Formats: sequence, C-alpha cells, structure tokens
Amino acid sequence: MGETITPATHHNHLRLRRLGIDTYRQPVVYMHRDCLICRSEGFAAQARVKLQLHGREIIATLNVIDSGLLQLDEAGLSNWAWQALGASEGEVLTVSHPDELISLGGVRAKLFGETLEQPEWSAIIGDIAAGRYSDIQLAAFVSACAAGHMSVAETISLTRAMVEAGSRMHWEQRPIADKHCIGGLPGNRTSLIIVPIIAAAGLTMPKTSSRAITSPAGTADTMEVLAPVTHDLASMRRIVEREGACIIWGGSVALSPADDALISVERPLDIDSPAQLVASVISKKVAAGSTHAIIDIPVGSTAKVRSHIAARNLGDLLEQVGLALGISVQTVFTDGLQPVGRGIGPALEARDVLAVLCREHDAPLDLRERSLQLAGSLLEFCRATHVGSGYAEAAKLLDSGKAMEKFLGICEAQGGFSEPPGASFTHTVESAEAGRIVAVGNRRLARLAKLAGAPRAPAAGIDLHVACWERVEKGSPLFTLHAQTPGELQYVLNAIEAGLDVFTLERD
Amino acid sequence: MGETITPATHHNHLRLRRLGIDTYRQPVVYMHRDCLICRSEGFAAQARVKLQLHGREIIATLNVIDSGLLQLDEAGLSNWAWQALGASEGEVLTVSHPDELISLGGVRAKLFGETLEQPEWSAIIGDIAAGRYSDIQLAAFVSACAAGHMSVAETISLTRAMVEAGSRMHWEQRPIADKHCIGGLPGNRTSLIIVPIIAAAGLTMPKTSSRAITSPAGTADTMEVLAPVTHDLASMRRIVEREGACIIWGGSVALSPADDALISVERPLDIDSPAQLVASVISKKVAAGSTHAIIDIPVGSTAKVRSHIAARNLGDLLEQVGLALGISVQTVFTDGLQPVGRGIGPALEARDVLAVLCREHDAPLDLRERSLQLAGSLLEFCRATHVGSGYAEAAKLLDSGKAMEKFLGICEAQGGFSEPPGASFTHTVESAEAGRIVAVGNRRLARLAKLAGAPRAPAAGIDLHVACWERVEKGSPLFTLHAQTPGELQYVLNAIEAGLDVFTLERD
Repeated sequence: MGETITPATHHNHLRLRRLGIDTYRQPVVYMHRDCLICRSEGFAAQARVKLQLHGREIIATLNVIDSGLLQLDEAGLSNWAWQALGASEGEVLTVSHPDELISLGGVRAKLFGETLEQPEWSAIIGDIAAGRYSDIQLAAFVSACAAGHMSVAETISLTRAMVEAGSRMHWEQRPIADKHCIGGLPGNRTSLIIVPIIAAAGLTMPKTSSRAITSPAGTADTMEVLAPVTHDLASMRRIVEREGACIIWGGSVALSPADDALISVERPLDIDSPAQLVASVISKKVAAGSTHAIIDIPVGSTAKVRSHIAARNLGDLLEQVGLALGISVQTVFTDGLQPVGRGIGPALEARDVLAVLCREHDAPLDLRERSLQLAGSLLEFCRATHVGSGYAEAAKLLDSGKAMEKFLGICEAQGGFSEPPGASFTHTVESAEAGRIVAVGNRRLARLAKLAGAPRAPAAGIDLHVACWERVEKGSPLFTLHAQTPGELQYVLNAIEAGLDVFTLERD
Repeated sequence: MGETITPATHHNHLRLRRLGIDTYRQPVVYMHRDCLICRSEGFAAQARVKLQLHGREIIATLNVIDSGLLQLDEAGLSNWAWQALGASEGEVLTVSHPDELISLGGVRAKLFGETLEQPEWSAIIGDIAAGRYSDIQLAAFVSACAAGHMSVAETISLTRAMVEAGSRMHWEQRPIADKHCIGGLPGNRTSLIIVPIIAAAGLTMPKTSSRAITSPAGTADTMEVLAPVTHDLASMRRIVEREGACIIWGGSVALSPADDALISVERPLDIDSPAQLVASVISKKVAAGSTHAIIDIPVGSTAKVRSHIAARNLGDLLEQVGLALGISVQTVFTDGLQPVGRGIGPALEARDVLAVLCREHDAPLDLRERSLQLAGSLLEFCRATHVGSGYAEAAKLLDSGKAMEKFLGICEAQGGFSEPPGASFTHTVESAEAGRIVAVGNRRLARLAKLAGAPRAPAAGIDLHVACWERVEKGSPLFTLHAQTPGELQYVLNAIEAGLDVFTLERD
C-alpha cells in the first residue's frame, strides 16, 4: 500500500528555454497551462514541483504561462533555479511531484509549543539546506522558532543541525581566530582592519562575510571594492594557507547553507529571534573551523540590540552555544549610537578602511579605535594573555605598516588589489540652521545611501562631515551625497526635500 | 522629520505589457533590471513595490527581467495583479515604494505571545484584505495565530475584523438560514440538497460556497456543472429575492476577503488552527447576513477533525464566537469514515445530487440521509420547533418534488440549468482478491480523482461501486475512473499500478 506515485516518465520531459527572470533565491519553474505535464499531473499555479537535471534535483514553485512565452513542450526557470541545476538552453528537464515534506510536521509541532529533539532539527535544517522548503514554509519555521519556546538545548541542536547541513573546514593549526558583529551600524567595517592585524600577529583568521541584504553595504561588498571576494572552499584554503587569513563572501562557500535561506525570510519579516541569530552566527564560525571568536554587539537605540540587558542575554546564549559546539566565544559590547567612520557605501567605507590602514592623518579615529580594541581583545583571547597587552600589540602592528602590508597580501592572494572608485556625481547638503547635533538616524542614513545606489553602484553612498554632539552653523556642510548617475542623485535630493532628515538638531 | 519619501513622479511610469503569467493569488510585477525605476529606486528582486493604475492600488513582489521579455520602459504583471488593477495592454503603470507596513508589529507581538486588542486585529486584517501582506508575512501571521495563545476574546476580535474588512449583506426578513461543513469528506455535497429544501420550506438561505483548493471538487465546482455560480453582490441579492436562496461561489462576492488570502497560505502549511477556522467560517456567515447556521463537523480518522473531543472543543468555540457576532450557531457531528454518495469530482457528485433530488430508486442513501438530517435540524433551529418535526418536513419537501422544483428555480435564477457532462474515457478497476473492505482512504481517493483531472475537467473523477464493510469477490468492480483524455486516464492507471491503493481489504 505505498503512497508514492511513479508516473510514466515519457510524460515528464520538457525542453528548457532561458527566460531570464530573477526571483532572488526563489526557485520558480514556468510551464504552459496546456502542456501535458500540467494537465496530467494536475499541476496548478503555486504547486511545488520536483525538477531533475544532470543528476541534480531541486524543488521549485510553478508559475503557469497563458501566453506565447513558452511552447507546450518547453519549460522556463528563474535565474536561481537555472543556476542551481546548471541548466543550458534546450536541455531536457524532468518534472514530477515532490516527495512529501515529512519534516514540516516538526515545524507544526514547534509552533504548537512542543520541544524538538536533535533528529527533528536535523531533518528540518537538512530539507531547508536542500531547498525543499518554500518561502511560506520557511516563514512558518522562522515564526515557530521566534514564538518564544526555544530552550538553550534546542538552540544548540538547531546550531548543530545547521553546521551538519553544510561543508566544514578543518585546520592543522590552532587557534583559529574569528570575529563577528551583530549588525545595525552603518560604516562599521572593523573586520577589514582586524583581520590583517591578527594575521600580521601570526594567527590564522579565515573570515567569511555577508553581502548587504537591507543595508547599503555588507563587509563582503566593501571588500569587493578592494579585491575579489567570490571564492570556493579550495580557493579559500589556498588564500588562508598563503596569508594566514582571508576576507571572502560567505555566500560563495557552502558553510551553513540553510542560514542564507532563513535570512531571506527573516529580513522581510523583521523577525530575528535570539535563538536563530545565535545559531546563524555560531554555525558559520564552527563550519569555518574557528576555535576563538570575538563577537561585537553594538548597543544603541537605532542599532539592532537596543538595551544592555538584551545584549547581556544574547551574549550569554552565544557563549553557551559556542561552548557546546566546541568554540570559545567572547562578547564585547560597543557604542551603537551613530555610524562608524565617515563613509557609508562600499567605496566610501573602503576609503575609510584604507585611511586607517595607511595611518593617514585624517583617518577616522572611531574606526581605528574600535578596530584596535576588538583586535586587541581577540589577540588576548586567542593567546590567553593578560588584558591590555593585546591593544598595544595591535596598535604596533597597525602603526608599523605591517597590517597594511598583510592586507595587500590578502588582496593579492584573493586576486589583486584595486583602488576604490570615485563617484561621478556629488552634492553636499548643508545645515539649514545653527545648533548642536543630538541624534543621528542610522536607519535613515542607510536609506539615503541605498537611494543613491549603494551597494549596487559601489561608489554611491554618503560621506558624513559631522558627528553626534558637534555644533553646526547655518550653511555648515552636513554630508555629501555620492551617485553614479545624475538621476539617482536627484532622486535622493527629492527624498531629502520631502522631509527625510538624518540629524536631530537642538537649536541655540 | 517625516519618514515618507515622495519620489519624482516622472521617473515612476512604465508601459504595461501582458505576459500571461499565472502565479495564483500572488501579485507580481516584472521590470527590466536596467529600467530607470529599478536603478533609481534601488529595487531588487523580491522587493515589495506599490503599483497604481486607474485609481486602484496594490502591493506586488518584484521579479527582475534580465532578457528581452520586456523593454526598459515596460512592466509586466502576473494575471492576478493584472486583474486586480483592471489593466489593459499599453496603459501606464505608476510604481513606487510602498508605505511602511505598521500592522506587522502586531504580528510580531502575537508571535511573542502578547494579547492583541481589537484595533490591532483590525489593522492586520485590513492590510491583508487590501493585499498589502506578502506570502511570507501571511505565513508569519497564520503561524502567530496557531502558536497557541488565542483567547476566545481574541478569536472574536479576529472574526469581527474579518467581517469589517469586506462587504456585508443585510436582509429585511428573519431568520436567514445558513449551513457549513468542516470539510475533508469527498462527495459530501449536502448543501445542494439542503438549500432547496430550506427555500422550499419558505425560509431564506443565501449560500456562498468555496471552490476546491486541495480537493477534487468544492461545492461551488459541483454547482457550476449545473448552473453558473459567479455572481456579484447585486446579482446574489436578486437571485435570493426571487427564489429565497442561492448557491454561488463565495470568491465572486467580497464577503470576508481576507479569508481567501489566509487560506492560500494555510493550505500549503497544513496549519488550520481552531481560531482561524472559526474566524473564517463565522465571518463569512455574518457577512452574508445569516442569523442561524448549522455547522456539520464530520469526525473520522482521515477526515479533518479526528476525535470527538476535538469536535466538541471546536463546536464550543464556533457557538461562542457566533453568539458574540450576533449569529446563532448549532454544530452537528457526523460520521467521517468514508466518502458520501458514489461520485467524486464535480459532474459525478452533481449526478448524485440530482439522483437524490429526483428521488431516483438508486440514489445514494447516505447522501439523502445526511441531507435530510441536516436540513431537518436547520428547520427546527430556525423556527425553534421541537426536535423531530424538521426531518419529517424535509423528507416531505424532498419526496413531493418541491425541493427539486426549487432547485431548478435557483438554477434558472443563476443563469439556467445544465445536465452534468459525461466523461469520454472510463476504466473500471476490479478487486485483485476476495475479502471485506475495512477502511477507505479518503485522501487517496481525492488524489486519484485529481490525477484524473478533477476539478479542472468537470467530468473527471471516480465513481465508487463499493463502500466500507462490504464484501468483494476477486474481480468485483471497485470503482470506475472517469477522464476527459486518454493520457490522463493512463496516468491514473500508472499511479494505481505503482501502488496507490484506496481500500484496505481483510482477506477471507
């Protein structure tokens, strides 16, 4: 009395045609309404469909074509699905009903408040990593985890499942240093300074970073202005073996692959529960083979973590889960009130990073200080030496030019260093009145920088001329907009004219 | 310090081009990657985008075109979005950033276990009814409600919000009778028999029904075989004023519009929490102006409600919420062990209904009995008369032909009666051995009927020749498959050969 249907295979083949539709991470298959498979399988729009090509297999959502876009014997794929299957024009795709998604029962159980065991977490995360969950199902899983019933033990199981679902790097040497920042502050590109300092000190630091999802630049976007960041695991290993460190895009290596799928629904929902945040961070560190990780938690009213109690709780959970997964975690709480450095946007942030590494006299002090503090803590943490010695060593490596030398070595190993590009169009916004700046809107700054074209246009963004608590006169320059096209520049100006203020001014 | 950006309008226009892509209920807009709006607004794939045309406004998900499917100044729409905006080829669409979705804060609060008040429920449901929630956001809302923290008061608030989000009918006369079945049993088409009986008894019954979503036929699909079911509110009123009743498709009138959006994510998640089920059912009854509703809850191991305790709890909640919304609800628990009648699929079920209404000698007794029981209860409930009198009256109206006469009147008022179509291809499946049938797989039967083409092909489906507890010989006919094409017939036969059994046989 089997449940599986094995359909006649001759019905289930369609010729692939490239449509060039980008749906971000959503695998979509396009089939004509009157094609034999839709008719005989009873497939309707939004059905989940199993696709097979070249021995690879993915589950996609069906969109049904009612027009001449496709012939009856053709199928189209979204770009993501096309790439996942390694498809080429005219190849023959096999289409069938997907197997039942058994692990979804665990999601419902979690939603109803039950406690899941390791095998259930592993089944869910395994299916997610294999792309078997639709966006709706991912959203239900994220919601179930956020609904407040995740014990520490379950968070550990979830993290372990996320590690097991992907590749994992092993290194001969120890310790392996790592660093992470719980986001939310524009311009906070300390990684690009910390990594070369740590490597210059002789430690190993295989750093993977993310691209921007809702921000004007991720660490990977900023690094990409200076050197290539897309590398596979073998290439990553070569870079780290040569230079002791790398700064590459995490999306190009399959470390904790379920995490990218989860993030793609967490962002639009603005749900980022502690359990999932911790599982995401720790799983990537463990998969990268790290043994010691410093985690920077900026605390501020417009940062991601808004109170010291929340920061303390999150820090405890990070350390406990890290311990269970065999990695030493130390958390550092930093000031999250305003952006770090002056530039916001890939090239402008890269410029700040280079200014610090090259010890330019006008390099942003806050970016230098944060980087040295964190690098110092990481050095002490990895070597178990006394507090205070790390900062001095980090400062020495930076000021002697050794960190910059190491940074150029890393860039070289990743494919070669480039100077950051300049923007074609700029406009400086001046203060309409005199007074003192008493607050900076991190989220509004990010929004303006994105409207100007960041991170898609690397040179686009915002260059700040003032900081919190500074006095400004009427006509003082507040910030300069950078854009690649006059249309985009005008677009940001319209937004500002319409009332998108960035600074809160206390008038004299 | 306004948050809103008013963009330059001249950037934001695109010419509409029909692509004919069916995404079911998901509004999608297609724009070229290099179009000025994508560039200047910073729109990327999966962004939520506000679309305006003809004074109408919807929020759609962006898919980005990398090929020649669209010119730079063109936009495409999914069929659902095309229809929602009343679009025509070549018209000028206005595209911009959507307003912030404030009500999503309530979804997160619910997810974190907080209790929401009426204004928060109303804001969420208002946004859902207006199409402002993406599938991901809908899934998070459904998950939040299912996470087990819905009080009766909150269920009442949710139901009230769902009523207020749509149109509402008012009738001069009282009582207004209604009937609903908590699904899960193939062939359970009692509504088509109960409605004419109630109307023949002189009561008013404005019945709206749903189409199949995962089953081989909804009541609206079965009725559509016999008469048109797509009517607007004005037409629905005319039909009811003339005949005292109607049986139309609920999707064509805007009664509780949020419900259709919620159902579209509840089905793939297989999450149907009591609170949402009750809000869905009661809101539609209240919006239709009903005063007295009988709710049939089939209980069985392969039905939707699997135990009598679950049925009792659900019944209590239905009655309490109904009371709060001003409608009297009576629940009836029925046997949910096997399909009702013999046919499964729109035309075959319609044939069973006609056989009962026309008092044919071989009409399915179970369909007749269930219909008379429910119609009798509804008559007693509406008139507050003593138990037992209703059944007799219902039987008299059926056996005298008055119910059939009324049914034909309703069909006439809805646009004219048609005979159900017959299938072009049939095949009878026989028992491979002798024995007694001890269980019927409702879900497998539904699956085979769908593989045969139901409900898309109205004549497709399954005709049962045996029922539970019957003895069969080797070679006894078990059921006949009906299909519109030889390919589909073969397809079901392959599925059966591959092991999709429907009956559990206890061998002699």
